[in-house]
Amino acid sequence: MHTGRSRNDLGASMVRMRSRGIILSLVEKLVELRSTLLDKAAEYQDVVFPGYTHLQPAQPVTLGHYFTAVEEGLSRDTTRMLAAYDTANASSLGAAASAGTGFPIDRDLPAKWLGFTKLARNTLDAVASRDYLLETLSAATIAAGTLNRHVQDLYVWYTQEFGLIDFRDRVSGTSSIMPQKKNPVLLENIKGRTSHQLGAFNAAIAGIRNSHYQNIIDANRIGFNPSWQALEELRVSLLLTRVAFENIIINKDRALERCKRDFSTVTQLADTLVITAGISFRSEERRVGKE
Amino acid sequence: MHTGRSRNDLGASMVRMRSRGIILSLVEKLVELRSTLLDKAAEYQDVVFPGYTHLQPAQPVTLGHYFTAVEEGLSRDTTRMLAAYDTANASSLGAAASAGTGFPIDRDLPAKWLGFTKLARNTLDAVASRDYLLETLSAATIAAGTLNRHVQDLYVWYTQEFGLIDFRDRVSGTSSIMPQKKNPVLLENIKGRTSHQLGAFNAAIAGIRNSHYQNIIDANRIGFNPSWQALEELRVSLLLTRVAFENIIINKDRALERCKRDFSTVTQLADTLVITAGISFRSEERRVGKE
Amino acid sequence: MHTGRSRNDLGASMVRMRSRGIILSLVEKLVELRSTLLDKAAEYQDVVFPGYTHLQPAQPVTLGHYFTAVEEGLSRDTTRMLAAYDTANASSLGAAASAGTGFPIDRDLPAKWLGFTKLARNTLDAVASRDYLLETLSAATIAAGTLNRHVQDLYVWYTQEFGLIDFRDRVSGTSSIMPQKKNPVLLENIKGRTSHQLGAFNAAIAGIRNSHYQNIIDANRIGFNPSWQALEELRVSLLLTRVAFENIIINKDRALERCKRDFSTVTQLADTLVITAGISFRSEERRVGKE
Amino acid sequence: MHTGRSRNDLGASMVRMRSRGIILSLVEKLVELRSTLLDKAAEYQDVVFPGYTHLQPAQPVTLGHYFTAVEEGLSRDTTRMLAAYDTANASSLGAAASAGTGFPIDRDLPAKWLGFTKLARNTLDAVASRDYLLETLSAATIAAGTLNRHVQDLYVWYTQEFGLIDFRDRVSGTSSIMPQKKNPVLLENIKGRTSHQLGAFNAAIAGIRNSHYQNIIDANRIGFNPSWQALEELRVSLLLTRVAFENIIINKDRALERCKRDFSTVTQLADTLVITAGISFRSEERRVGKE
Repeated sequence: MHTGRSRNDLGASMVRMRSRGIILSLVEKLVELRSTLLDKAAEYQDVVFPGYTHLQPAQPVTLGHYFTAVEEGLSRDTTRMLAAYDTANASSLGAAASAGTGFPIDRDLPAKWLGFTKLARNTLDAVASRDYLLETLSAATIAAGTLNRHVQDLYVWYTQEFGLIDFRDRVSGTSSIMPQKKNPVLLENIKGRTSHQLGAFNAAIAGIRNSHYQNIIDANRIGFNPSWQALEELRVSLLLTRVAFENIIINKDRALERCKRDFSTVTQLADTLVITAGISFRSEERRVGKE
Repeated sequence: MHTGRSRNDLGASMVRMRSRGIILSLVEKLVELRSTLLDKAAEYQDVVFPGYTHLQPAQPVTLGHYFTAVEEGLSRDTTRMLAAYDTANASSLGAAASAGTGFPIDRDLPAKWLGFTKLARNTLDAVASRDYLLETLSAATIAAGTLNRHVQDLYVWYTQEFGLIDFRDRVSGTSSIMPQKKNPVLLENIKGRTSHQLGAFNAAIAGIRNSHYQNIIDANRIGFNPSWQALEELRVSLLLTRVAFENIIINKDRALERCKRDFSTVTQLADTLVITAGISFRSEERRVGKE
Repeated sequence: MHTGRSRNDLGASMVRMRSRGIILSLVEKLVELRSTLLDKAAEYQDVVFPGYTHLQPAQPVTLGHYFTAVEEGLSRDTTRMLAAYDTANASSLGAAASAGTGFPIDRDLPAKWLGFTKLARNTLDAVASRDYLLETLSAATIAAGTLNRHVQDLYVWYTQEFGLIDFRDRVSGTSSIMPQKKNPVLLENIKGRTSHQLGAFNAAIAGIRNSHYQNIIDANRIGFNPSWQALEELRVSLLLTRVAFENIIINKDRALERCKRDFSTVTQLADTLVITAGISFRSEERRVGKE
Repeated sequence: MHTGRSRNDLGASMVRMRSRGIILSLVEKLVELRSTLLDKAAEYQDVVFPGYTHLQPAQPVTLGHYFTAVEEGLSRDTTRMLAAYDTANASSLGAAASAGTGFPIDRDLPAKWLGFTKLARNTLDAVASRDYLLETLSAATIAAGTLNRHVQDLYVWYTQEFGLIDFRDRVSGTSSIMPQKKNPVLLENIKGRTSHQLGAFNAAIAGIRNSHYQNIIDANRIGFNPSWQALEELRVSLLLTRVAFENIIINKDRALERCKRDFSTVTQLADTLVITAGISFRSEERRVGKE
C-alpha cells in the first residue's frame, strides 16, 4: 500500500485536501451572507439613506442600493475563493519524494477516489508548490477587507451622532463603569478577526518566497501553521456579520431627515435643472452653491 | 461632455485602465519566460541533474523535468494574472460620484469605446472598490515568490561548492577588492526586486481594509501609490530572468558525477529490487542503507 | 585613499549615514508636531469635549487632555526613532569586504570624521547587518500608526454628524459635482501616506530575513529601495498634520452640548454618589441606569 | 476593591504584564544563545573558515570571528527587546475607562505592587495605546530575521556540497523513501517558526493603525490574538538553535582545504604585496587576477 508513496506527496495531498475543506466552508459563509444582504436589500429597497464619499454626505441612495453594492463586492470574493479551490484541487499522489516512482502506478485512480479533478502533473511541482494556499490566503485577506470596510460603515452608522442604525440588546455590550452605553461589541469582534488573514499571508509568503523549489519543512509546512486559524477566523467573521443583520434596526426616519437636512440632494437638483432648462452644469453649480 | 461625470467614476476608470495595462505587460513577460523555460527544458531534456529535497540530494531528475516544474508553477501565476485582468476590466463610467446620475446616459457605449467587456453594475461598488488592484498585487506577490524560489535554486547551484551552473562573463559581477570572484549580481538583482510586491500589497491593504465602502482618497488612491513601481519591478525581474537563461552554462559533467557520487539513485535501486524480487520495501530500505 | 576600502564597507557606511539623516528629519517633525499638540493642549485646556470608547460617548474630558494623550504616544515614537539613530550610528569603515584588512588602518579616525559615535566592531557584522534600517522602518510604521489613529479621530469629528471640528476653507476640498461638500482632503492625504511605511518594512524584511549573514545585493540594498520614499512620506504626513492644526476650528458649543446630551457624565455622577452617600457602586449603577 | 476600576484599565494592565513576561522569556533565550555563541567562538577561535559575500568565497575568516558577528547582531536584538520591556512597564491602573476617576485613588501604590516602574500618566493614552506590544512584535520580527539569516548559513554549510558542518544523528531526520539522507530538520524547524512574528506584527498593526485613539476591542485586543503564539515560536526557535549548537560538528579539514583551494586568500596576498612593495592597489589587482 505504501509502494510508490512518500511523506512528501502524501503530505502535499493532505494540505490540498485540508485547503479544499476550509475553502468550501468559507464559500458557504460568503454565499449565506450575500443571500442575507440581498434579502435586506429587498426589505430596504425603498428606504432613502444618505450616501457618503469622504465620509461626507454626497447623494441620497436607497439602503437597498448600498446592500447590493457590498453583495457585489463579496461576489468577487467568492469568485476568487472558487478559483483558489480549483488551483488546490489537483492530486499530488504519485509524485513520491519529488521525482515520481519507477513503479507502474496509476495516478488517476487515487486522484479520483479523493475527489481531485486533475493531476498536479509535474512531480517536482506537485511536491514543492504551495501557491494554492497562498492564493487562498490572499483571497481571504481581500475578502476580509471587503467585509471590514462594510462593517466599518455599520460601526460609524451605529454611533449616537450618526444614529442611522441600532442593534437589538442581545448583541450589544454594556460597560462595567458606564451603564448608559451600548457598545458595538459584535462589530468590534468581527473587525478584530479580519486582520488575522493578512498576518497569516505574510507569515506564509515570508517563509516560502526565499526557499528552494522543492520540499522543505519550514517553507511548505511550518510557515503555514498560522493559516488555518486565520481562515477559521474569517469564517466566524462572516457568520457573525449575518448575526448582526438578524439583529439590525434601521432608523428610517433619521436617515430620511438626514438626507433632507444636509443638502445632499443638490446634485440631483442641479442635474434636473440642466435637463429641464438646458443651462450649463458649471454655471449651475455656482448658482446652487449660493442658494 | 462632462455631463453625468464625476472625478470619482473618471478616477476609478483610469485606475482600472492603468491596471489592465500593467497586467498585460506582466502576462507578456510571464509567457515569454515560460516559453524560454520550455525551450531550455527541450534543450536539456536528457541532462541528468541532482534532484533535492531539504537541499539534500534526493533522486536524480532531468534538468528538463526541473524546468517544466517551474514553468508549471508560472502557468498558475499567469492564470491568476488573467483573472485579475478580468476583475479589473469592468467600466465604472456613469457611476458619477457614486449614486449614478439622473441624466439618461448610455453606460455601455463609453465602456465599449474604452475596451471594457462589462459594467461595474452597482454604482456605489463601481466607485468604492479597488479589489481588482489588490488581486493584481497579490497575484504579483505570489508570482514573485515562484520566481524567487526558482532563482534561489540557481543561486545555490551557481556557488563554487555546487558548481552546477555558470553564467557568461557579461552578466557576472566582479569584486573591487577580490579579483578572483564572479558574483551572481544578476540573480541578486532579480531577487532584490521580488520583495517589493509584498510591500506594496501590504501598504495597499493596510490603507483600504479599514476604510469606508465609498470613495476615499487615502484608501482608494494614495495607499496604492507604491503599487505601480512594485509591479514594474516584477516585470523587470521576469525580463532579467530570461537574460539569465540566455547566458546560462550547465555543467553537465559535474551534475552527472554529483548524481553518481551522492547515492541519490538508491531509491530507484530499492524500487527496482522490490519490483523484480518481490521483497518488501521497508526491509529493503534497511538493506540498501547498510551497503 | 582606497587602501583598505571595499564597496562593501563604503556601501554600508553610506546606508548608515543616509539613515541618520532621514531619522533626524523625522525626529524634527515629530518634535515640532508634539510642540504644536502641547500648544493646542494649553489653548484648549478648559474645553470640555466628549471622550469616547468603542466610538461611543463615555466620559467628558478636556480637549487638552486628549491632545496631551496623543503627544505622549508620539513621545514614545520619538524615543524609538532616537534608539534607531543610535543603532545606525556606528562606523562600518575598515571592515573592507567583510574580513577587515591587513593594512594597519585606524578605524576610529574616519568614524570620528563622519560623526559616528562608535564602531561596528565585528567586521562581518558591520558589512552584513541592516537591522538599524529595519529598526528605523518599524519605528516609522508604529509612529505612522499613532499618527493615523489620531487623524482617524479628527476625521470622524469632522463629519457633519459629529460636527466637533472644522477646517478653514483653504485646506478643504470641494467636489466637482457636489458644490455643498467640504471634503477632508488634507486628512485623507495624511492617512494615505501612513500606510507606506508598513509596506516598506515588509518588503525589506521579506528580502533580508532569509538571506545569508553576509553582504548580498538583494537583501542589503535592493530590498530596501522602497524604504526611503516611505520614510519621506511619513515626514510629509507629520508636517501636514501640523498644517491641519494651524487651520483647525473647534466647535466648543457643540462639544459641550454633546457632553450634556449623551449622559456621558453618568459615571462621574455615580462616583460622586458613592463618595458622598457611601452606597455601593453596582447597586448605584442600576439606579442611575433607570433614571 | 473595584472602586475606580474599569475593564479598560484592568485589561490594559494585564496586557502590559503579559508582555513583560514574554519579553523576559525571550531575553533569557537570547542571552543563553549569545552565551553559547561566545563559547563556540572561543572553542573555534583558531579554526580557519571560508568567509563569503554573495555566497561566493571572499576571504578566510576564523569561525570564532563569524560566531561573534552573529552574537553582536543578537546583542542589538536584546537591546531592542529590553527597550520594549521598558515601554511596556508602565502602569495603566487608575485610568479607569479612560478619563480617570473622581475617587481620590493612589495610582503609585498598585503600580508598585505589580512591579511597574512608572505610570502611564495620561489616562486616555494609558488605555488606548498598545505601541509597547507593536514594539515587542517588531523587535521579535527583527530578531527572528537575525536568527534566520544565521540558520540559513548553517543550512547551506550543512549541504553535502559545502560539507562544512554536520549534526549528530539524534537531531537529523531521515527520509521514509531515501535511506541515505540526513535531513536538516532541526534547522528547518527553526526557520519555519521565525516567519510567524512578521505575520503577527502585520495582523496587529493592520488592526490598530486605522482605529480611533481609544479603547476598542478589535484594535486593542483581538487583532493581537496571534501575537502570543508567534512570540512563543520565537522563544522555541532560540532554544532549538542552542540545541543545534550542542550537536554541531565542524569539518575543520574541509574548511581549511576550501580556503586554500578557492583563491580566497588573494585579497590578503594583494594587501601584503602593496604593504611590502609599495605598489598601487589597482595595478596589483590586475596582476594577481592574471596569475
